[in-house]
Amino acid sequence: MIKPIAILLSFCLITAFSTKQKKVIFFGDSITQAGVNDIGYITKMQKIAKDEGFADKVELIGKGIGGNKVYDLYLRMYDDVLSHNPDIVYIYIGVNDVWHKQSHGTGTDANKFERFYQAIIDSMQARQIDLILVTPGVIGEKTDFSNSLDGDLNQYSKIIKSLAEKNNTGLIDLRGMMIDHNKTNNPENMEKGVLTRDRVHLNEKGNDFVANIFWKTLKDKL
Amino acid sequence: MIKPIAILLSFCLITAFSTKQKKVIFFGDSITQAGVNDIGYITKMQKIAKDEGFADKVELIGKGIGGNKVYDLYLRMYDDVLSHNPDIVYIYIGVNDVWHKQSHGTGTDANKFERFYQAIIDSMQARQIDLILVTPGVIGEKTDFSNSLDGDLNQYSKIIKSLAEKNNTGLIDLRGMMIDHNKTNNPENMEKGVLTRDRVHLNEKGNDFVANIFWKTLKDKL
Amino acid sequence: MIKPIAILLSFCLITAFSTKQKKVIFFGDSITQAGVNDIGYITKMQKIAKDEGFADKVELIGKGIGGNKVYDLYLRMYDDVLSHNPDIVYIYIGVNDVWHKQSHGTGTDANKFERFYQAIIDSMQARQIDLILVTPGVIGEKTDFSNSLDGDLNQYSKIIKSLAEKNNTGLIDLRGMMIDHNKTNNPENMEKGVLTRDRVHLNEKGNDFVANIFWKTLKDKL
Amino acid sequence: MIKPIAILLSFCLITAFSTKQKKVIFFGDSITQAGVNDIGYITKMQKIAKDEGFADKVELIGKGIGGNKVYDLYLRMYDDVLSHNPDIVYIYIGVNDVWHKQSHGTGTDANKFERFYQAIIDSMQARQIDLILVTPGVIGEKTDFSNSLDGDLNQYSKIIKSLAEKNNTGLIDLRGMMIDHNKTNNPENMEKGVLTRDRVHLNEKGNDFVANIFWKTLKDKL
Repeated sequence: MIKPIAILLSFCLITAFSTKQKKVIFFGDSITQAGVNDIGYITKMQKIAKDEGFADKVELIGKGIGGNKVYDLYLRMYDDVLSHNPDIVYIYIGVNDVWHKQSHGTGTDANKFERFYQAIIDSMQARQIDLILVTPGVIGEKTDFSNSLDGDLNQYSKIIKSLAEKNNTGLIDLRGMMIDHNKTNNPENMEKGVLTRDRVHLNEKGNDFVANIFWKTLKDKL
Repeated sequence: MIKPIAILLSFCLITAFSTKQKKVIFFGDSITQAGVNDIGYITKMQKIAKDEGFADKVELIGKGIGGNKVYDLYLRMYDDVLSHNPDIVYIYIGVNDVWHKQSHGTGTDANKFERFYQAIIDSMQARQIDLILVTPGVIGEKTDFSNSLDGDLNQYSKIIKSLAEKNNTGLIDLRGMMIDHNKTNNPENMEKGVLTRDRVHLNEKGNDFVANIFWKTLKDKL
Repeated sequence: MIKPIAILLSFCLITAFSTKQKKVIFFGDSITQAGVNDIGYITKMQKIAKDEGFADKVELIGKGIGGNKVYDLYLRMYDDVLSHNPDIVYIYIGVNDVWHKQSHGTGTDANKFERFYQAIIDSMQARQIDLILVTPGVIGEKTDFSNSLDGDLNQYSKIIKSLAEKNNTGLIDLRGMMIDHNKTNNPENMEKGVLTRDRVHLNEKGNDFVANIFWKTLKDKL
Repeated sequence: MIKPIAILLSFCLITAFSTKQKKVIFFGDSITQAGVNDIGYITKMQKIAKDEGFADKVELIGKGIGGNKVYDLYLRMYDDVLSHNPDIVYIYIGVNDVWHKQSHGTGTDANKFERFYQAIIDSMQARQIDLILVTPGVIGEKTDFSNSLDGDLNQYSKIIKSLAEKNNTGLIDLRGMMIDHNKTNNPENMEKGVLTRDRVHLNEKGNDFVANIFWKTLKDKL
């Protein structure tokens, strides 16, 4: 008669599993670095998690560094992500890969963006990490496609979407969502001030926007 | 009874006016420089003029120099345009103002583009030249707004359109027309080969396209 | 016998001439804009002028605007310089013409730098303004020629020197002087902190350095 | 009495060792890609090897691809170098890392250049490959440090020299040697035509120059 023990064991296992806290890392640039500030999107997600009763079920960790491009994530993925054994990782990169072409002459070639991004995905999937890829938001909020880097942002977003599909990861097309939001909420075609404070970095409304979108995908995994 | 003489005079004036050959200068960059080649858009316009019986009524002169930006047109407008006393001038510039940001680091600031363009307009209008402003075509023919310089091309086209309105000149929104054409004729989202041979410079179809559009506006003035 | 009167008149004229206050305009970019600050080089020159008893003989006017390139000086030379009828003008430009290649993609082509600079010289010399051309200082103070823009700064300085010679103007090779100074005073090959606070903009020592050099050339003209 | 056999074995081993052909890979960009052409530096080295009686002792393999930067070498080092088990590798990279800042906006940040270069060194040294690092030659041959990218080339050369020292590899300071050569052989301060045909790519004299320098270091290892 080993059944009672088996049942007990199963119960323990299920309990253990269901109460196991999921470790989530947000891996990105200055937008994510600011995500842990008072009004940052990660801070806001933590509040939402608490309000909705998920406080014990999830640990949210920001690993954003200002100015980072895909190369930087590649170089620090062991130290900052893999060594922490996360369950879920949001990769939120691409703005500087495009922007630095213009501001520093050291942006990322499209083909290299894809190669190094793929290498990050490979390393993470080899450790069974659940990945959510995020397309870069905006550099300029004008809605008539006259922000100077719109073309490249669209192109790099396409690359990310195709990587998500090819590698069977999660995907948040944040760029598409921000553009859609602004079409409705930016009738004056302003270049900043809707979801960003400076064309790139999220203002409080932008942080709310991102927190809600990210939370929706995360909640389903808890 | 002076009426007969008045009528005669009027007749002479009308005749003189109607037979006076109009001098037309196309003022631009490498696209216009190539416009006088065998398959160039200016050569094609000359054929059209001949076919439609306007050969004697119009003289078409190409003044395009490869690599030119608005600054270059400004610097050579006296030598290459004003000193020739044209009746009509097509100003067809802007591709390099945007492109050279990426390829040489010496593109044109948007505010300077507007200032120097306005200065050219002022000098030409002071001589009663009939102006037609042309928006820059394309740098890349992809139709999903993922060509890397689409944002800036849209922005500089907006500036040109606003200059045309403000200065009451003619306007050909060539960029808008090429994009519309490609939406229908480039279902595979190719980056070249529809109207251009290399993403920027017109192939024969592109030269036909431009010749027909330019001719339509010109014919009305002859 | 009109001689006494003539002598008297001559005396008055000489007196008038010798006491006539010279109007000096410093025409430039952010370095000159900051030149009128408390520790700015123009403020320091005013103190020197006072200390040396030239306070009544010279009026020093700063006309610097941040981010300006040669194109900007060209566009605002009537409003900001010629309309003020200065006797002497220091043209101190070039840093942004080089720097913006890297930081904005909108630097100035070398040939255009020369053309527009020459046009400024022509307009000013046509009004008998005494010109002093100044080569751009530094973008980075490392002394082993490994500052990323050293090559271009050297090239644009060569252009300015050749313009000075060709147009018979005054010349201050500020770049050469700053490099010489740093060879002695920057043994650790620091990229900033010797004469600049941020690789480009003058710290107090830098403002002293420039004030003394500029004053030396100015004093001879008073 | 095993001595004769021992002697024989020793002889065979020595012979085997001394006759073992060394496999040498030149790992680089378009300059190395052209190195296997008729007048290319690798072809010339093969002729020298033959003339000097080293034909059987060395195998020279070109692995250059046009446009390559340090990132590209990193991405293809397994396929193109490590999988071939070379004895010696010349790493000859850096021109595009600097040049593409200006021509494409996708040059390499100095700190990333160092990080990825180090990663290549690590992978090769882990396989006991004998490394020779080569500093990038020139982009423009003017000898008065007014080539627009001189500053960065000097900086990236400094990084390579410091990597060589730190990792105890061989070093050829090709940039220093080319500059020294031009100081004597380019009295007219030409920007091309001394060792290059186009400011960057080696003409025949340049290929001779590089072949001789590289051979000198290689011969010592055979």
